[in-house]
Amino acid sequence: MSKCPIKHCFLFIFADLLPAKNGEEPTMQFLLEFVEILTNYIRKTFDRSTKVLDFHHPHQLLEGMEGFNLELSDQPESLEQILVDCRDTLKYGVRTGHPRFFNQLSTGLDIVGLAGEWLTSTANTNMFTYEIAPVFVLMEQLTLKKMREIIGWPVGEGDGIFSPGGAISNMYSVMIARYKFFPEVKTKGMAAAPRLVLFTSEHSHYSIKKTSAALGFGTENLILLNTDERGRVIPADLEAKVIEAKQKGYVPMFVNATAGTTVYGAFDPINEIADICEKYNMWLHVDGAWGGGLLMSRKHRHKLNGVERANSVTWNPHKMMGVPLQCSAILVRERGLLQGCNSMCAGYLFQPDKQYDVTYDTGDKAIQCGRHVDIFKFWLMWKAKGTVGFEQHIDKCLDLSAYLYNKIKNREGFEMVFNGEPQHTNVCFWYIPLSLRGLSDGEERRERLHKVAPKIKAMMMESGTTMVGYQPQGDKVNFFRMVISNPAATRSDIDFLVEEIERLGHDL
Amino acid sequence: MSKCPIKHCFLFIFADLLPAKNGEEPTMQFLLEFVEILTNYIRKTFDRSTKVLDFHHPHQLLEGMEGFNLELSDQPESLEQILVDCRDTLKYGVRTGHPRFFNQLSTGLDIVGLAGEWLTSTANTNMFTYEIAPVFVLMEQLTLKKMREIIGWPVGEGDGIFSPGGAISNMYSVMIARYKFFPEVKTKGMAAAPRLVLFTSEHSHYSIKKTSAALGFGTENLILLNTDERGRVIPADLEAKVIEAKQKGYVPMFVNATAGTTVYGAFDPINEIADICEKYNMWLHVDGAWGGGLLMSRKHRHKLNGVERANSVTWNPHKMMGVPLQCSAILVRERGLLQGCNSMCAGYLFQPDKQYDVTYDTGDKAIQCGRHVDIFKFWLMWKAKGTVGFEQHIDKCLDLSAYLYNKIKNREGFEMVFNGEPQHTNVCFWYIPLSLRGLSDGEERRERLHKVAPKIKAMMMESGTTMVGYQPQGDKVNFFRMVISNPAATRSDIDFLVEEIERLGHDL
Repeated sequence: MSKCPIKHCFLFIFADLLPAKNGEEPTMQFLLEFVEILTNYIRKTFDRSTKVLDFHHPHQLLEGMEGFNLELSDQPESLEQILVDCRDTLKYGVRTGHPRFFNQLSTGLDIVGLAGEWLTSTANTNMFTYEIAPVFVLMEQLTLKKMREIIGWPVGEGDGIFSPGGAISNMYSVMIARYKFFPEVKTKGMAAAPRLVLFTSEHSHYSIKKTSAALGFGTENLILLNTDERGRVIPADLEAKVIEAKQKGYVPMFVNATAGTTVYGAFDPINEIADICEKYNMWLHVDGAWGGGLLMSRKHRHKLNGVERANSVTWNPHKMMGVPLQCSAILVRERGLLQGCNSMCAGYLFQPDKQYDVTYDTGDKAIQCGRHVDIFKFWLMWKAKGTVGFEQHIDKCLDLSAYLYNKIKNREGFEMVFNGEPQHTNVCFWYIPLSLRGLSDGEERRERLHKVAPKIKAMMMESGTTMVGYQPQGDKVNFFRMVISNPAATRSDIDFLVEEIERLGHDL
Repeated sequence: MSKCPIKHCFLFIFADLLPAKNGEEPTMQFLLEFVEILTNYIRKTFDRSTKVLDFHHPHQLLEGMEGFNLELSDQPESLEQILVDCRDTLKYGVRTGHPRFFNQLSTGLDIVGLAGEWLTSTANTNMFTYEIAPVFVLMEQLTLKKMREIIGWPVGEGDGIFSPGGAISNMYSVMIARYKFFPEVKTKGMAAAPRLVLFTSEHSHYSIKKTSAALGFGTENLILLNTDERGRVIPADLEAKVIEAKQKGYVPMFVNATAGTTVYGAFDPINEIADICEKYNMWLHVDGAWGGGLLMSRKHRHKLNGVERANSVTWNPHKMMGVPLQCSAILVRERGLLQGCNSMCAGYLFQPDKQYDVTYDTGDKAIQCGRHVDIFKFWLMWKAKGTVGFEQHIDKCLDLSAYLYNKIKNREGFEMVFNGEPQHTNVCFWYIPLSLRGLSDGEERRERLHKVAPKIKAMMMESGTTMVGYQPQGDKVNFFRMVISNPAATRSDIDFLVEEIERLGHDL
């Protein structure tokens, strides 16, 4: 290692770092310089005068921006250059923690959660056995129990696991439902079961469809349910479709009720759906990937009334609860199904003759073998905020969305996609540029309006001031979907978003 | 925030941190104190006088160790307590980066990889769209291309994705094989296909079996192939079983060849298996989760000869290449299959009317929706080490395993599970305590020997000096499986392991 003329800068190479002999000093130097890059980034992320992003097209980044070369080479770079690469990676990325980043369901940057993730990667271990993740395995167990208590299952009984995202959690729900009703599918395949039918809302997340394809049901055997104007499943439509399927000789097996749909933020009426599931002996899954967080709020948890009747629940703390990505739980009411469904008893991992209680080796419940430690950051945030802290965060986000709704519902140039205060933080609206305001409803207006949101979004990204999502839905042309899960957002940021949309879209 | 009498210690609470007003100072204080905990941990991890672990039984940790309380509560803890919790979490965990940790295929703590993971969690974004992960999406694309070039596919053509571990990567391979041969299964389910049969070695990873259950094939339709004494598939057995399946009217669809089995480290003869796959029109998957890293070594890559004939390859940089968990790639020779198999075209994410080239939105290839950024740490390590750095690491690990093999093959008290130099770093052996050395081979000796490895392992863990895995395999009683992927390990650590086994096991 040699000191370079630039202050604080050491020219050293990878091979100097730990575990190299005398690697301690260069390692600590490197990490401290590196942490300075990260803390500068964090500071700026929360500074509203910083852009949310510095947009470049793929070809621009691929061509190399001012020396930022993405290509990999045979020879090592100096650690000095590695630090520059890190700075550039952050520079050309998107600040998902910025108070004006509203683009996804997962936003914000919780500092304690972040610390949790840094520790997790420093511990660099694997959830499959107690042997190598004793503390994390217990934290997962306790946290899942707490979540089940909050769902309302007696004394938190049941089972569960953290999985790599809500889509995989939903996949688990279908797998274990099939195992419950047709355990022989595990050994004999789908040929051992009759034609099985699954039900989900037309507004539900596309992962249910992915799962029906992947697990061998086929997407045609996933029946989409009609919803009301707010995007909530109509229970009578479910019952009618169940009866129709039975008449055809199919076996209705699984119903997914969504607690917080992706676009409208709608909560399906769980109790009424549960009645039908009980009547026809079907598995009830509640996809609360987005809405599950509301269970933490005494004010809002009624929107999930009946969730305790579900057989399984998906709940992603990495969305509404602000936990860093990835953190998703699949919770199951009946104990033993996860294990029964997935266990293959690999002798090299799950030795029965270990010195400790091997029921703590949870790896055989998973479809994965190695499993990332997703629990620690969540556990640590819970310690730091307390249950009450999550409640405050959720209530605040819902207050902000009510503020946005009330601000724009009668504002000139804004049109709501559906009426009434949003159930979740999703506020869906069109912005109508001046040139379209006089046009009567019809194909021309629809076609032109369809292009407005993408245009405004593109300008937002080019200017880097804020980010919000848009999409069409059913017969509705492109509209904005505003969601708030970001703990950094305030009313001033909502005001900014509205004014920015007006500024960019007014003359379109 | 108030200064506490203890030096450097600030009593502050979660609500003081960013994004709180004036949160910058407490945030930086907190992070700096926190990073000091992590750097101390890192220093100690590489110090051989530190224990690998400080073992406690589940009930001990659950009862609370000296104030380390795992229970979650309603009220927040102070950040001071949070720092103590972090220290305790590390204290009671396992140092997977310790030079004497040999327990899993993933070991070691690469400092640049670690920095990469810290940056990843600070960026806290999601791989599904270019929109919110522009740099990471491009890094993934370039790195996958490089990996395909190394496999030997012309100009790196093909496709791929990083997935949450080798089991999921293997699951992808079966899904896309099925989609290639029977695309209608996506919509109509397994009923649309004839009875499909999969083949894999009896020594292969259990994830292939998990996948055959999950995807609706059934574990009975996964045919296990016989192996030679070194754990390598016997190609003639594959062909015989393919013919037998066809005679029964089944359709042989998929063959998994393992490059580096979990226990023996065996490499199946890919070229001979590829011949049979071509002859009978079957998909060839190479599970190189463990052995794929050897492709980086000019000296050892011949063990995967024929890999370029595979239709898909699993390759986990988080194993042999020392990348922090999780980092696993599924690579596919034919472009478009991943997309065709999994795409559901969710309108809210994959809008076709974005301002940039939306072919860079790769999320619809995945079975996940949100996808953790697994690429950056790997990309950064590649920058820092260069291709040559990975090669050196792999050659060094294989040299160390040859050293171990030569050290114990004729040593008193040691017995090899199979003869000949290991193909990978796996060295499999029994330790025979003095009391068993005179016993002739027979049931009594087998029964007693079966208990030796678990006993030694338990003592190792109690004393915390080192960790190595054991398991039975087929008709072989419990034996040690030594593996080396840890960049910190040296010959002295191998010597230590051998002597420690002798010390603990001599008088059993």
